[in-house]
Amino acid sequence: MTDLFLTERLKPILEQIKTIIHEDIIPLEKNGMEYFNQIAEIIHKNIRPKIKEKGLWGLHLPQSLGGLGLTLCEFGQLSEILATSPFGHYAFNAQAPDIGNFELLHQFGSTEQKQNFMLPLSKGEIRSCFAMTEPEFAGSNPVNLGTTAVAEGDFYVINGHKWYCSSADGANFAIVMAITNPENPPHQRASMIIVPLETEGFEFVRNISVMGEKGEGWMSHAELRFVNCKVPKKNLIGEEGSGFSLAQHRLGPGRIHHTMRWIGISERALEMMIKYALSRKISDTETLSDKQVIQHWIAESRANINSARLMVLDTARQIDQKGASAVRNEISAIKFFVPKIMHEILDKAIQTHGGLGVSDDTILSHWWRHERPSRIYDGADEVHKTALAKSILKSYK
Amino acid sequence: MTDLFLTERLKPILEQIKTIIHEDIIPLEKNGMEYFNQIAEIIHKNIRPKIKEKGLWGLHLPQSLGGLGLTLCEFGQLSEILATSPFGHYAFNAQAPDIGNFELLHQFGSTEQKQNFMLPLSKGEIRSCFAMTEPEFAGSNPVNLGTTAVAEGDFYVINGHKWYCSSADGANFAIVMAITNPENPPHQRASMIIVPLETEGFEFVRNISVMGEKGEGWMSHAELRFVNCKVPKKNLIGEEGSGFSLAQHRLGPGRIHHTMRWIGISERALEMMIKYALSRKISDTETLSDKQVIQHWIAESRANINSARLMVLDTARQIDQKGASAVRNEISAIKFFVPKIMHEILDKAIQTHGGLGVSDDTILSHWWRHERPSRIYDGADEVHKTALAKSILKSYK
Amino acid sequence: MTDLFLTERLKPILEQIKTIIHEDIIPLEKNGMEYFNQIAEIIHKNIRPKIKEKGLWGLHLPQSLGGLGLTLCEFGQLSEILATSPFGHYAFNAQAPDIGNFELLHQFGSTEQKQNFMLPLSKGEIRSCFAMTEPEFAGSNPVNLGTTAVAEGDFYVINGHKWYCSSADGANFAIVMAITNPENPPHQRASMIIVPLETEGFEFVRNISVMGEKGEGWMSHAELRFVNCKVPKKNLIGEEGSGFSLAQHRLGPGRIHHTMRWIGISERALEMMIKYALSRKISDTETLSDKQVIQHWIAESRANINSARLMVLDTARQIDQKGASAVRNEISAIKFFVPKIMHEILDKAIQTHGGLGVSDDTILSHWWRHERPSRIYDGADEVHKTALAKSILKSYK
Amino acid sequence: MTDLFLTERLKPILEQIKTIIHEDIIPLEKNGMEYFNQIAEIIHKNIRPKIKEKGLWGLHLPQSLGGLGLTLCEFGQLSEILATSPFGHYAFNAQAPDIGNFELLHQFGSTEQKQNFMLPLSKGEIRSCFAMTEPEFAGSNPVNLGTTAVAEGDFYVINGHKWYCSSADGANFAIVMAITNPENPPHQRASMIIVPLETEGFEFVRNISVMGEKGEGWMSHAELRFVNCKVPKKNLIGEEGSGFSLAQHRLGPGRIHHTMRWIGISERALEMMIKYALSRKISDTETLSDKQVIQHWIAESRANINSARLMVLDTARQIDQKGASAVRNEISAIKFFVPKIMHEILDKAIQTHGGLGVSDDTILSHWWRHERPSRIYDGADEVHKTALAKSILKSYK
Repeated sequence: MTDLFLTERLKPILEQIKTIIHEDIIPLEKNGMEYFNQIAEIIHKNIRPKIKEKGLWGLHLPQSLGGLGLTLCEFGQLSEILATSPFGHYAFNAQAPDIGNFELLHQFGSTEQKQNFMLPLSKGEIRSCFAMTEPEFAGSNPVNLGTTAVAEGDFYVINGHKWYCSSADGANFAIVMAITNPENPPHQRASMIIVPLETEGFEFVRNISVMGEKGEGWMSHAELRFVNCKVPKKNLIGEEGSGFSLAQHRLGPGRIHHTMRWIGISERALEMMIKYALSRKISDTETLSDKQVIQHWIAESRANINSARLMVLDTARQIDQKGASAVRNEISAIKFFVPKIMHEILDKAIQTHGGLGVSDDTILSHWWRHERPSRIYDGADEVHKTALAKSILKSYK
Repeated sequence: MTDLFLTERLKPILEQIKTIIHEDIIPLEKNGMEYFNQIAEIIHKNIRPKIKEKGLWGLHLPQSLGGLGLTLCEFGQLSEILATSPFGHYAFNAQAPDIGNFELLHQFGSTEQKQNFMLPLSKGEIRSCFAMTEPEFAGSNPVNLGTTAVAEGDFYVINGHKWYCSSADGANFAIVMAITNPENPPHQRASMIIVPLETEGFEFVRNISVMGEKGEGWMSHAELRFVNCKVPKKNLIGEEGSGFSLAQHRLGPGRIHHTMRWIGISERALEMMIKYALSRKISDTETLSDKQVIQHWIAESRANINSARLMVLDTARQIDQKGASAVRNEISAIKFFVPKIMHEILDKAIQTHGGLGVSDDTILSHWWRHERPSRIYDGADEVHKTALAKSILKSYK
Repeated sequence: MTDLFLTERLKPILEQIKTIIHEDIIPLEKNGMEYFNQIAEIIHKNIRPKIKEKGLWGLHLPQSLGGLGLTLCEFGQLSEILATSPFGHYAFNAQAPDIGNFELLHQFGSTEQKQNFMLPLSKGEIRSCFAMTEPEFAGSNPVNLGTTAVAEGDFYVINGHKWYCSSADGANFAIVMAITNPENPPHQRASMIIVPLETEGFEFVRNISVMGEKGEGWMSHAELRFVNCKVPKKNLIGEEGSGFSLAQHRLGPGRIHHTMRWIGISERALEMMIKYALSRKISDTETLSDKQVIQHWIAESRANINSARLMVLDTARQIDQKGASAVRNEISAIKFFVPKIMHEILDKAIQTHGGLGVSDDTILSHWWRHERPSRIYDGADEVHKTALAKSILKSYK
Repeated sequence: MTDLFLTERLKPILEQIKTIIHEDIIPLEKNGMEYFNQIAEIIHKNIRPKIKEKGLWGLHLPQSLGGLGLTLCEFGQLSEILATSPFGHYAFNAQAPDIGNFELLHQFGSTEQKQNFMLPLSKGEIRSCFAMTEPEFAGSNPVNLGTTAVAEGDFYVINGHKWYCSSADGANFAIVMAITNPENPPHQRASMIIVPLETEGFEFVRNISVMGEKGEGWMSHAELRFVNCKVPKKNLIGEEGSGFSLAQHRLGPGRIHHTMRWIGISERALEMMIKYALSRKISDTETLSDKQVIQHWIAESRANINSARLMVLDTARQIDQKGASAVRNEISAIKFFVPKIMHEILDKAIQTHGGLGVSDDTILSHWWRHERPSRIYDGADEVHKTALAKSILKSYK
């Protein structure tokens, strides 16, 4: 692994986190991913206190909030390590969508919003969700939204239908994207509004069964309805009509979070592939690792991960230095470049493990299933490729 | 679709089966794949009687057993239609592993074995399983087997550990591969023995959780143990030491069954992709089907399926004419050629469906998960490629 | 190789042709592809007389013209064998574009055109070319043509600029696509006109240097200009405005010819890969053929060629039975399916040969270069994929 | 393009070089690659003096020799710009194999060798070649060498057969790899010896025709024989038996040179693809750049090049900091990672250009042909993948 982006302060933290992941988190996997909520319970009771004790709570928080005040490029490197187990981010309270909601509120929330929503989030006291995607409209065209928030006195009355609201099950509040200003130009019609989930008119339709699992709690993806759901106007984040602009802000660092997570998954899968290949006997004198085809999978995976990590961390560095909008092209590129690599590695790792690889006795199957959406959410591969190409073509005109 | 292998007697049967699949089977999918056993129940009660009424019971059976007496090449074409829904084969009692066990007993079983095991199987009164793979030994080397069957008077005493015994949950008997003649040359050491599952010493360890689901009943994959499990010698199929030879016999037509099933799945996935692309609006004037990238996926999928179907049916035709051992190369080729095509199409179909594609609201997710093993069982892709290459190289020496 | 499409009369011819290719044609390759015209000379003097003697002249001709009267599906199988050397088709006078021009004149030519142009062509006395593509217009839109043929009394006066007119160098006549009826709907504007190349106003601009070689004679691709080039109206093929319709007729069987040629090339490249891998020592005990990666290339190539051949021959069979317009989709599919496979095999064969593979000491380099256009001419891959997809989508609307 | 590795001193040099490439070098391409030696002549007479005038001579030389004293990472970035035309490196006297021979002599040559061979090389007064590969032995096993250098008094008598000695035609001397110590362990048997090409016993067999061109002068690849070729012992570079060790030293930076060259080629091909797509009309309102498939090629190419550049420059940085042997894995990785990307882009660029793309009217065809060997020389892709995998596997044992 390159040391190109490693900083002095990062080194000891990386080591500490690796230790926690290997000693405390990965052993939980043996309980089986199906008992996810029990594992979440163990993490709450046993692991999070330990993390706080070691001063590692708040990896992503600014120092003003008791965090480490890392740059995005530094946090990305930690994020990779956290991602080597599906529970890593959760243990450190750095899980999506809470981390994105935190960042949004930290940058754009009112004092009151910060007090009531951001702080409890940063302490891990509550969870949250994000309600943007709608089943009736193609995600590739964010201008089309059916959900409306109509002003009524000091309130917005929200009506709409959302799905893939990850972690809504058990969340305290949702940040909801809704049309507030239909008269505006397309990209200035929507706003983001905080909806506490005890609000009347909020309907939890179901946890969508995704890739064979309904999930529950944090690890779930809900379908929601808002039926005359009334929230105070002070729950508006930023300005009316700023919804898409905020979404862009949320997505920039969010893509670094996602892609570094995928790199962590890729590294773990590669390591599993290597270890299994070394241990699996295929004859008295040979193991799977002696097979040239397996060797080439290992070599190609190694090269691919290295290239992906450099792409993402260099993009993070540039976001730190110039802001996300200056590297929109790079952000598009990593969004489709990294999942492809992760899927190839997961596929090879499963293939190497044979029957064991398709069973739930390893976590490979979990990732094969629950990372398939990575090529779809936050903009399908195809959408990002088109966006990148159009931006390049424009620069030549 | 080519009419190259269509026979006169096949045409009306194909039409009838298509009707049943579309009118009776596909609508069951909406109940959700998670309630598989309830669906199995509905099939038993409502669908199978209807099939018998229409004279379509026993698609794969010889006429002597009340079946249609089709060639393998003809049956393959039916099998494709059955496979367009995960319940199709089951409705017609043509599901693996029963169909393979039936064929084995029909060709090599004793009169008593046929009476006691094959006939109830062909009538759909009982189910069966096949116990060959062992977790401790790489499947790519079938000579390594830990399970033994030691002769004791008129009995064999079986000890061993098996997994991926599909449909063992609720089965009446297993056909077990075990070493009976350790003194023989490697390929003549094992035998196939029928083990009724009420026999003492048979231990059902668990349904293995595979790709997120333990499953149950027919749709499950069990881990089994045999501990001093005593069965009469008359339960031996064929000769002592003929296990591998029988396995080869079982696998030849078995690969036609599998590959035609994968072609059926591919066709359904392609059709879903086309229909969804046509219906999904991405702007006021365009649907997904107007996107060139989607169009190319459709075109490539169409060409790939066509090529795969011709490969498989031509192989089936040759098995019918010359026997499986004459086309061992072709059988190896289809075993790795077809799953690759199916996976690419499933991937594109999911990607086209976006969020819906990764949910369990369509059957694409079911196949994405439960057909991943297709590249592993009955010999991993890599094993078949090596086998084919070695056979070709040998012919040049 | 499958025997599915083999006919009784074909068997002995196939064997005879194989013998000629191996004994007479392939040995010519050692003279080096750069001396192509000398090889053409040898073929004229030594090989063609021998072929005529054996009664094998006119593989593609109807019996009425002294040919074998084979179906397209039968001829396709011969064509594959001819293509295993770049001189095979030429030796048998079955080379493009003459074979296509022959077929066109045979179906649609006037008695006089047959007498003056088709007969000498079928006897190998003259060569011809086909002038359709224009550098100024994208080939993907055949409606755009700059070349015009304006009626003047009993003559057409042709003006235009053409390129990629294969074999124009030394040809006796060209069939030129030109706009005769600009007032018609787009697809009825062009006509095909025979232009003897001694006509005044015909300008041979250059043999285009393609992939490093200008070539000469039959193996060349010319840029041509027609400047007030006056030809008698009786040189019109078929009706005025029928140019595109004739082009479609020409292309149907033409695609069988091309794709079977690519299959022949693929077979030869695979055979070269196998033989070289078996002979190349990499250690005292091993040859390249012992490497698993090479083995997998061999296996994948074998499967791919088998699938491609079945696709093409089944399409040829259907053209024979139903005409080309009934299987337009299948014709589109093979046009992009087969070149992809050929290129992968050529790439692997070159890689296996190492330094030798990129030299001109084998014919692999010739094909690597001169078959790259296969994915471009007669409609780029992308054009055919779009056409196939649109046709499929239409059938679902 | 990332600015990650850009240094202050590099910026103005990069700009100057870009200007020279665009104003002076690229226009030469229109003369056609076939007239390479005439172009070389123009460069000698017109371009090199201009370069010297501007103080840009010796981009790769240490300051002590009048060069710029750049790091490898800095030079890599220049090298990319040079490579955007096939003549760029040559214009700056930074062409292979001279640059590698220079580096070797600079590090390991005796004072006399530096005086007689290195200095004239660095001034561009002479050219040189490197004779390692032998047709009789697989390059993947460098221990097998047939060429011997037997000590006789103060001389070595060299006998052997070499090929792919690039630029031997017109070179002043060769560095020849020959077995001097057959009694040593395998990796200590060979030595590198300078052979002036006027030496008796040196036989220039031929310029090998590669991908359709024999080439001449610098752009050629020779087959050579050494028959009792007698050179003074002082022509030995370093110690007897150090040949492989020197080869390793030569290859480390050499791979940065090659891979950065391939990145430059990729950038130029991508730019050509973009510009052509923007200019090529496919209808009255659309150009090729409006096609989604072309857009995706552009986006994927952009992402791929970015990732490759980061990989290579980070490897160069590490060589600068820790030496090549510390990053042997990274060097293996870029050797197979970058050519794959370059070939995909060349393929897409050709496909976008259609008929023009396969002609020699653009330089795409030149690269399609003459960069195909990039996946073979200096170790085939497969050799590097295996080497990388074995090194990784070893670290886990």
